[in-house]
Amino acid sequence: MTVNTSVTADHNAPAITRQLAEFVANHPSKGWSDAVEHEAHRTFLNWLGCAIGAARHEAVDAALAATQMLQPAPQATLAGRSERVDMASAALINGISSHTFDFDDTHLKTIIHPAGPVASAIMALAEHQGSSGRQVIDALVLGIDVACRMGNLVYPEHYDRGWHITGSTGTLGAAAACSRLLGLNAEQTTMALGIAASQPIGLREQFGTMTKPFHPGGAARAGLMAALLAQKGFTSSARALEAPRGWAQVLSTKYDWREAQDELGQRFEISFNAYKPFACGIVIHPSIDACAQLRAQGVKAEEVEKIELRVHPLVLELTGKKEPQDGLQGKFSVYHGCAAGLIFGRAGEEEFADHIVTREDVVALRRKVQAVVDTSVREESVYVTATLKDGRSVQVHVEHAIGSLQRPMTDADLEAKFHNLADPILGESKVESVLDACWGLGQASNLQVLLKQLAP
Amino acid sequence: MTVNTSVTADHNAPAITRQLAEFVANHPSKGWSDAVEHEAHRTFLNWLGCAIGAARHEAVDAALAATQMLQPAPQATLAGRSERVDMASAALINGISSHTFDFDDTHLKTIIHPAGPVASAIMALAEHQGSSGRQVIDALVLGIDVACRMGNLVYPEHYDRGWHITGSTGTLGAAAACSRLLGLNAEQTTMALGIAASQPIGLREQFGTMTKPFHPGGAARAGLMAALLAQKGFTSSARALEAPRGWAQVLSTKYDWREAQDELGQRFEISFNAYKPFACGIVIHPSIDACAQLRAQGVKAEEVEKIELRVHPLVLELTGKKEPQDGLQGKFSVYHGCAAGLIFGRAGEEEFADHIVTREDVVALRRKVQAVVDTSVREESVYVTATLKDGRSVQVHVEHAIGSLQRPMTDADLEAKFHNLADPILGESKVESVLDACWGLGQASNLQVLLKQLAP
Repeated sequence: MTVNTSVTADHNAPAITRQLAEFVANHPSKGWSDAVEHEAHRTFLNWLGCAIGAARHEAVDAALAATQMLQPAPQATLAGRSERVDMASAALINGISSHTFDFDDTHLKTIIHPAGPVASAIMALAEHQGSSGRQVIDALVLGIDVACRMGNLVYPEHYDRGWHITGSTGTLGAAAACSRLLGLNAEQTTMALGIAASQPIGLREQFGTMTKPFHPGGAARAGLMAALLAQKGFTSSARALEAPRGWAQVLSTKYDWREAQDELGQRFEISFNAYKPFACGIVIHPSIDACAQLRAQGVKAEEVEKIELRVHPLVLELTGKKEPQDGLQGKFSVYHGCAAGLIFGRAGEEEFADHIVTREDVVALRRKVQAVVDTSVREESVYVTATLKDGRSVQVHVEHAIGSLQRPMTDADLEAKFHNLADPILGESKVESVLDACWGLGQASNLQVLLKQLAP
Repeated sequence: MTVNTSVTADHNAPAITRQLAEFVANHPSKGWSDAVEHEAHRTFLNWLGCAIGAARHEAVDAALAATQMLQPAPQATLAGRSERVDMASAALINGISSHTFDFDDTHLKTIIHPAGPVASAIMALAEHQGSSGRQVIDALVLGIDVACRMGNLVYPEHYDRGWHITGSTGTLGAAAACSRLLGLNAEQTTMALGIAASQPIGLREQFGTMTKPFHPGGAARAGLMAALLAQKGFTSSARALEAPRGWAQVLSTKYDWREAQDELGQRFEISFNAYKPFACGIVIHPSIDACAQLRAQGVKAEEVEKIELRVHPLVLELTGKKEPQDGLQGKFSVYHGCAAGLIFGRAGEEEFADHIVTREDVVALRRKVQAVVDTSVREESVYVTATLKDGRSVQVHVEHAIGSLQRPMTDADLEAKFHNLADPILGESKVESVLDACWGLGQASNLQVLLKQLAP
């Protein structure tokens, strides 16, 4: 392992900017297994459902209103809305909406949500260009590979330092995907990655505000523009990712160059993408899952004396909010997540509505939840003990939460999730057509059939 | 001094995001001395001259071509060009052109070029809004104050780590300026600063490529959009600048909070702004100045055996390129700078043209220049010894280079520089009108008189 964790500059880093650019420009169309191909369709479908579902959220309204101050040309579709905007603004807004519910995909090795930046940029550019579905899937697989490999390269130090890794790697992924879609050669793609490298977006301090979903949206926009700039001859450093004052070394003190190189073109990071059953950060999914299992075992909220969790340290670091005041804050509260799991048996977007998070019985139950950090518990696990008023004790150990790679959402699960998100916006029959178009994307001659269904 | 240089998070940082936002929102119009007011006009004028001068550069052509893919609405003027684009794109492109020649202003404490991000955002927004010249100057002083104070707060560690501090602080300055121009209240301005904080732009690895001037342009665009987003209700962390996972602590291990607070509203950082007599990085100005002084003393290039420099360490770190291949690389070569100073007695944009940098006599002379680092030499100084073929030795010690705060460019110097830059683009008589409009900006009811002169 050549993991560098020192603060001394590495002047001999391999030329990963060029290597990744050559890969993106030259890898054969559909140059991967059927499993990878299918995962790409699942990733796209899950991303689109999330983007449609949040289309009427006030964060999306606000972002659209700001964008409309620019009087944008009607080049591209917004998921779940009737307005049209220029393609860069569409990348921004679809990226925001796809992450607003914290319900999108997760590359579990790095906690990157890769589709937000990458697919949002692709759909906007592909619409304007008339790209084929084949080109879209190719760009998606390759763009996500670049984002997630760069994430692997700096994770976890980069994230621990405070970068929202979805946005900081997302500009690179979006630039790679759009370079592919534009048909840029390796040299131009190198320039696009370089331009994008200077625009890492996202501080973790923003978690719990609209600026968190802004990160994938901003990354999508910046990556798309980086590719357009490179196409027009704009230049950047060809060592922007690896140089001593380049992306990895400035944004992290850990960088393992081999993550960019090993099995490139053979192992695809999209294979490690997972989809959330619950509309919140992945770290509390085991806890919600466990509480839903308590409910399935017959435990009722009114019987509970206390619920004790033993959790991975990140759970309290990311989602330790004891007294959430609204739905958004509820997503950063393992206590609310457990209450929702036990009371409702699920934690979709509805269970994070303001009126649920502040409902008396929900508040009462969450105050009975206690969590302690146990460094021996892995991120995908939790140990839960419910003590009941009658003295009984019920224990649940979740080894792998639903939605993990070990217990993945099925295609039917993903469709059900899509319906829950999109039916209220588009109506059920339109949603059926959209689902068909998503599954058939790789064969579509262009995106028109899909896109024309996306307005309410 | 409460300078924190440890890597342990500071959880008790003062609320500087709010403090700066309150300052920007509430400080009285023209609430500063006549000297500050005049410096603001000098800053604007110098920025505009640089932006006009580079209007036909291929970096600007490429950026405009990429932007035109979005079919932008003709909302705002581009300095020195006849095309019109939306205001956010105008902020981007004017920001790029103003820094393309490396000839813009420098806040000497931090090597920030503050006008690029701040003035570029202001002019675009002010045009679209019909703001008065008074509002423009107010926004400029306050926006530059925010950018440079945040720079002081993290300098030099942040810069040493590899951030191009012009872009990383520029988003904050542009957001502050545009918030003021939009009349946002303190709460909205806090949100705008927060949105901007998640978008630091610029790695030093890009020096010598078009992406270097992209940094102030991108910062201008991002800051303008952050203010528009905040106006429309988009939210961010109110502690985005100071929190453990906020701007300062993620982007630097040194943060001196008092730089954001001390004498706020009394000391204005624009007072420490300087203007370049030479079209390249400020660190080699003493060397160029010294070589021009050698020339003034009668030393001729053909007499020179060797020229020895003793320089501050940054000179070789930033501009140590021994064999520049074109004009852009020439700007990062103290060797070429010295050759230009001795041969031409100046180093404007013309002396960094490709054909000059590769001209035989220029190349021959630069190869006779040797530089050694001397940590006792300050950044604004240099010791130069020319050894002539006849055995004579001529020494020059520059304590403060022309263009420094101790030896500032006069108003007449700035006008001459403006003519050199803008006359080839706009013609001399139009330039005279532009200069008049710049000096009278604080009294102008709007920018129309100025703006209508800016197209060739």
